[in-house]
Amino acid sequence: MTEVVALLRDALDERVDTSDAALDDARSDKSGHRAAQRPLAVVRAASVADVQATLRIATATRTPVVTRGAGTGLAGGANTGEGEIALSVRDMNRILEVRPDDLLAVVEPGILNADLGRALAPDGLWWAPDPASREISTVGGNIATGAGGLLCAKYGVVRDAVLALDVVLADGRLISTGHRSVKGVTGYDLTALMIGSEGTLGVVVGATLKLRRLVPGETRTLTAQFSDVRAAAAGSAAVTAAGVQPAIMELMDAVSLAAVHALLGLPSPTPGATQLTVQTDGVAAASEQAEIARILSAAGGAVRLATDDVEAAQLWAIRRAMHPAMESLGTALIEDISVPRSALPAMFDEIARIETEYGLTIPTVCHAGDGNLHPNFIFDGDEVPERVWQAADALFRAAIALGGTLTGEHGIGVLKSRWLADELGDDQWSLQRGIKTVFDPAGILNPGKVFAAQP
Amino acid sequence: MTEVVALLRDALDERVDTSDAALDDARSDKSGHRAAQRPLAVVRAASVADVQATLRIATATRTPVVTRGAGTGLAGGANTGEGEIALSVRDMNRILEVRPDDLLAVVEPGILNADLGRALAPDGLWWAPDPASREISTVGGNIATGAGGLLCAKYGVVRDAVLALDVVLADGRLISTGHRSVKGVTGYDLTALMIGSEGTLGVVVGATLKLRRLVPGETRTLTAQFSDVRAAAAGSAAVTAAGVQPAIMELMDAVSLAAVHALLGLPSPTPGATQLTVQTDGVAAASEQAEIARILSAAGGAVRLATDDVEAAQLWAIRRAMHPAMESLGTALIEDISVPRSALPAMFDEIARIETEYGLTIPTVCHAGDGNLHPNFIFDGDEVPERVWQAADALFRAAIALGGTLTGEHGIGVLKSRWLADELGDDQWSLQRGIKTVFDPAGILNPGKVFAAQP
Repeated sequence: MTEVVALLRDALDERVDTSDAALDDARSDKSGHRAAQRPLAVVRAASVADVQATLRIATATRTPVVTRGAGTGLAGGANTGEGEIALSVRDMNRILEVRPDDLLAVVEPGILNADLGRALAPDGLWWAPDPASREISTVGGNIATGAGGLLCAKYGVVRDAVLALDVVLADGRLISTGHRSVKGVTGYDLTALMIGSEGTLGVVVGATLKLRRLVPGETRTLTAQFSDVRAAAAGSAAVTAAGVQPAIMELMDAVSLAAVHALLGLPSPTPGATQLTVQTDGVAAASEQAEIARILSAAGGAVRLATDDVEAAQLWAIRRAMHPAMESLGTALIEDISVPRSALPAMFDEIARIETEYGLTIPTVCHAGDGNLHPNFIFDGDEVPERVWQAADALFRAAIALGGTLTGEHGIGVLKSRWLADELGDDQWSLQRGIKTVFDPAGILNPGKVFAAQP
Repeated sequence: MTEVVALLRDALDERVDTSDAALDDARSDKSGHRAAQRPLAVVRAASVADVQATLRIATATRTPVVTRGAGTGLAGGANTGEGEIALSVRDMNRILEVRPDDLLAVVEPGILNADLGRALAPDGLWWAPDPASREISTVGGNIATGAGGLLCAKYGVVRDAVLALDVVLADGRLISTGHRSVKGVTGYDLTALMIGSEGTLGVVVGATLKLRRLVPGETRTLTAQFSDVRAAAAGSAAVTAAGVQPAIMELMDAVSLAAVHALLGLPSPTPGATQLTVQTDGVAAASEQAEIARILSAAGGAVRLATDDVEAAQLWAIRRAMHPAMESLGTALIEDISVPRSALPAMFDEIARIETEYGLTIPTVCHAGDGNLHPNFIFDGDEVPERVWQAADALFRAAIALGGTLTGEHGIGVLKSRWLADELGDDQWSLQRGIKTVFDPAGILNPGKVFAAQP
C-alpha cells in the first residue's frame, strides 16, 4: 500500500495529498454516509495526463480508484475507503472553448455548475442541467450521476445536453466519444452510456456540452397552498395534463414547509398547508402563469402571484432552504424516487401509508413538474436505522410499481445498490455488469458501488 | 438450413414466409445495396412471443437474425442474405397506450412514423423525431438507426424522445429498459445504448415515447436563393449564430434544385442557384421569419416569403422530391455526414475539392439547421464504382476532421462499417465490440453489419 503511494508521488509529486484532512474528507459526500476507513491518498489531478498517470499506476498495482468532484453526491458514490485512491478532478475546472455559433462549450469536469452558468451568460447562453446544488456541485458530477435538477420537464435531462466526452479508461488510455455536431449515430452511444455511470466505466476528463440561448422574456412566479398534500399533487398533475409547461414546479409538503419557515425565521405557515411554487418563463410567461393560476385555483389551491422579482426570489429561497431545514431536524437521509406525473397523487398516498406502517414522518419535497420526489428520513445519530431502510425499501417498490424508478437524479452509489436488481431485473443487471467488465476488466473503477450486491 | 425453416414453421406456422417475393424483398433496403443471396425465411412477427420464439430457434441453431421494419434504411443495415433469418416486426404496429397527462405513448415497433403522428394529433400531441421518410418508415427503424430528421435542432434527436424500451435479447429473453418517468438514472442507460444499435444488440419490440404538445401558433416559410453554395451555407450558419431557431432549415445545391425542378416539371431555377428553405413555428413564427429574412438578405440571399400555406406546401414538396430526383439521374448513393453548423461553409469547400479531385458531381442537400449533409453520388448500374468509394472516403475524413461524423442519422449498416474504426479509434471500436459480445455472445444478431471489419 505504501508502495502505491510511493509510485503516485514519483509520478505526480505534490498533487498527491495524504494529509489527515484530505483523507478524512474523501471518505464522505453529502449523503451522510461515510466509508469505514480512510483511503490511501487523494490525487488532485490538474490535467488529463495526471488522470492517466494515476490510472496506469492503479492498473499496474490493482488498486481501486474512486473519482470525485466537489463531493456533493447524495448516494455515497464518491466515498473512498481503505486501500483505495481518491482521484479528485476538482482542480480541472477550465472552460476550454465556448462557441455561440455552434451552441456548444468544451469544459473540464471540475468546474462548478453555477460558475459555468455565470461564464456563459454574457454570451447569452446557458447549459440547462440545473441541480439545486449548482453553487457547490461540478459539471463532472452532474454528468457522472445524471443529476438533472429543477428544469428537466421543460429543458431536458443531462443526457439531452452532452454532445461528446473525453474519458480516461481504467488502464489510462484516453478515448473521445460523440462529436461536435448536433446529430451523429456512428456506433453505440457511449456518451449516453457514460452519463450516470458514477465512475464505474472511466473518468470523464472533458465534456462538450450542448448549450441553449438564454430564454427571452421575463420569469413569473406564483404559489398555491393546499390543505393536503394529495390535493397539491393532483393540482400539479392537472397543470401537466392541461398542456401548460412551467419552467419549474416544486411541491413542499406541510412538514417541509414548516421546517423551512422555522429555519428562516418566517411566520409559521397555515398548519397542514402544502405549497406549490411555480415559475413560468419566456415570451408567454404571463399568460402561462394566468392559466396555471386558474388550474390550481380550480383544484382547490389558494393562489398568490409574486408581485415582483424580489418576492419571487424570496419564494425560491424557501424552496432552496429545504436541505438545511431537514438537517436542522436531525440526520437526514434524502431519497430520490421518480414517477410519471399522473401518478404523483398515488405516490403521496403510498408515502402516507408507509409513514403509518413504519411509524415515521417522511417530509417530502418534489420536482412536481417532472415527477421526481425527495422524501426525507430524519433520525438521530450517524447510522441509518434498519426501520428506515425497511421504509425506504417500501418506498422504492411503490415507485417502481407506479412505472417509476428508485433514483431520478442522485444515482445508485453505495446506498441503493442493494435495490438495483429489483428495478432492472436479474437479466438486465447481468448485462449491465457485463458492460462494466468490458470497460474495467480488473474491477478497479469504483468497486463496491452501483453493482455491489449480486442479485 | 431446411431444419431451421422447419423449426420456425413448427413454432410460427403461417408467419414464416419463404415465397420468392418475400425472400427477394428482404435482401435490400432503400440504399441500393442488396445482399448477394436470399435469406432462409422471412418471419413476420405479430407479437413479442413470435420474436422470442424466433430468437430461441436462432440461438439453438446458431442462425443469424436480421431485424427489419419497412426496409427504408439507407445503409444496408436490414439487408438479409444467405443462411440468415429476416425477422420483420412490420406487422407489430399497434399503439398500446397514449397518455396526454404524462406526455407519453407506448407503441409497437412496426408502426409508421406518419401513422403515429396522425393518431396523436387529435390529442394535441406529437412525437418529434421526423425523418423525411416518415410516410414509409417505422418508429422501430427510426429508433434502430437514430434517424432524426428535419426538426432535430429545435426539437431534439431520437435519443431525447424515448423513455423506455422492451427488448428481446439474442436468446429470446425479454428485458425492459428505462421507465415511464421524465427522470431516472438507475444503472447504465441501456435505452440510449439501444438507440442507433441497428439490430446488433437485441430486437426492440416495444417503445415508450416521450411526446410533445403540438406547437401552438402558425408556421411560416421562406426561401432564399444564393449564387453559390458556400454563400448559402454561410447564410444558414449566420442564422444559427444570430440566435434565431428555425424549426426547419434546408439547403439544396444547384444541381439538386435543378434536378427537382426538372422532375416536377417546374420552370428551371436560375442557373447555379442554391436554395435555402426555412420554416419557423410557434407564437413567434412571424417575427422569427422576419429576423431570418433580414439575416439571409444581408448574407446575399434573394429572399421570398411564402404568401400562404399552399405556397409553403409547394416549396416543401420541392425539398421532399430530392430522393426521386436523384434516382432520376442514375443510381444514387446517399451519404449522411454531419458537422458543427459553423463548419458548413468549410464542408462545402471540401465537397467542391472532392468533386474536382475525383471528377464527380456530388449533388448535396443539407439539413442546414443542424449541420447534417446528404451528398449524393450518382452512377450507372448496381455496383458502386471504386472511385465513388474513394471520394466517399475523402468525404468522411473531411467531416470527421471538422469535428463531425460520418453518419448523422442513417447509421453504419454494411455500407460504412469499414470506416467505423476511423471515426471511433481502435480503442473505442474494441470497447463497442465488447459491448456487442455481452449482448450477443453467439454473434447471431445482424452479423457483418456495423462491426464487419476488424480495424
